[in-house]
Amino acid sequence: MTQRLTLYTAKVSPYAHRVELALEETKLEYTRFEIDLRNKPEWYAPLVNPACQVPAIAYGGPVVDPSQSSPESEKITESLVLLEFVADLTGKLLPKDPVQRAKVRFFIDAVSNTVGPAFVASVIRGEPVAKIHEAIEKIQALLSAEGYAVGSDFTIADAALVPFLARLEVALKNDLGAFEEGTGLKAFEALSSEPKFARYRKYIADVKARDSYKKTFDEEFIHASLSKLSTSRKLAPTS
Amino acid sequence: MTQRLTLYTAKVSPYAHRVELALEETKLEYTRFEIDLRNKPEWYAPLVNPACQVPAIAYGGPVVDPSQSSPESEKITESLVLLEFVADLTGKLLPKDPVQRAKVRFFIDAVSNTVGPAFVASVIRGEPVAKIHEAIEKIQALLSAEGYAVGSDFTIADAALVPFLARLEVALKNDLGAFEEGTGLKAFEALSSEPKFARYRKYIADVKARDSYKKTFDEEFIHASLSKLSTSRKLAPTS
Repeated sequence: MTQRLTLYTAKVSPYAHRVELALEETKLEYTRFEIDLRNKPEWYAPLVNPACQVPAIAYGGPVVDPSQSSPESEKITESLVLLEFVADLTGKLLPKDPVQRAKVRFFIDAVSNTVGPAFVASVIRGEPVAKIHEAIEKIQALLSAEGYAVGSDFTIADAALVPFLARLEVALKNDLGAFEEGTGLKAFEALSSEPKFARYRKYIADVKARDSYKKTFDEEFIHASLSKLSTSRKLAPTS
Repeated sequence: MTQRLTLYTAKVSPYAHRVELALEETKLEYTRFEIDLRNKPEWYAPLVNPACQVPAIAYGGPVVDPSQSSPESEKITESLVLLEFVADLTGKLLPKDPVQRAKVRFFIDAVSNTVGPAFVASVIRGEPVAKIHEAIEKIQALLSAEGYAVGSDFTIADAALVPFLARLEVALKNDLGAFEEGTGLKAFEALSSEPKFARYRKYIADVKARDSYKKTFDEEFIHASLSKLSTSRKLAPTS
């Protein structure tokens, strides 16, 4: 039987979003605690995560207020470690077959080398949005012909990928990011219409139809946080 | 029941070494095929790994010569994906408890952020060997008080770590690397004698006593390959 589980998370973080998706998909019961990343509570590093990042899970131990996290609970961090943890706890989100499990993990490794860096490069640092298209094409080529990332079921590969695709879409659609003005919207239009992105569009539509996505992605909030980022970057462009 | 397994590997590669250690620890039967990384066979990328790197595993399919790898076998790549694959196939090298499994994976993540980059920074690029000491101290702080990386049994966390520690030791002990001449040997002497590295020394000694290590680490070969690297780097120092 699983024990008490508290997730320390932040709406803005794609890494934390991964774990929220996984938890919602498994229907595991958990307490959600939002950490304000611009004003982190003083107790967070000493009691929960010395690296002072989200996501983190406190697992087990007595009933306590999340801000008084007990030393008796286990603290687990790093989004990809947590995805595996949720899968191990529940027996869900990973196929049983070793070869299929390896495919899920290979896909996650590819996510770490494509859409993650592309988000940082274009949206945060202002490199050309072509990087985003390239990353999406690489990931698209790895998607199963139908269904989800690896096969017909939603797995931790999808939980690892979706938070980045969701944020990239909001950034491009609203032309919000450090990239050159106007290029985001153009990139979004290409993603929305070009035949070569058809598989990507179907995938995104399938993911958005899931309760886990609806419950965990607050588009308005991400829009607002990207607006702030975009304004501050454009006022102080990086070299 | 497990199927036919061929490992494409290279003695020089710490990434490939990880998987050799794991396979030896589990006693899984496998065919070992050495890839010459300086002169990769033409069939390797099209038949086995499009990224043309080691390690790779071909799993299943009919009996064929490794150089004629069948399209019917599954090709699996990326060292950390392969460590999990070997663990999944055998039910060994990972604890059963989800929290302990998370600790193993957190440790592996730390390896990727410490000794791996330190090896590249100091030995390959010539940055100060202090980076190696720092990395070893960080990893040492995560080691279980006794036994192996996480608990009393050898796990994939050890398989992920050991190939880097082994190569770092050879580089420092023989002062072979792009770092400043003489500093490697000094760093080695500190590792061998300073009380603050006692846990590291015990760990290394425990690992070296294992058959899996003896069978997979060819010190003379690594010494020779580091000598070549060191000579070429010192003739053409990086900026």
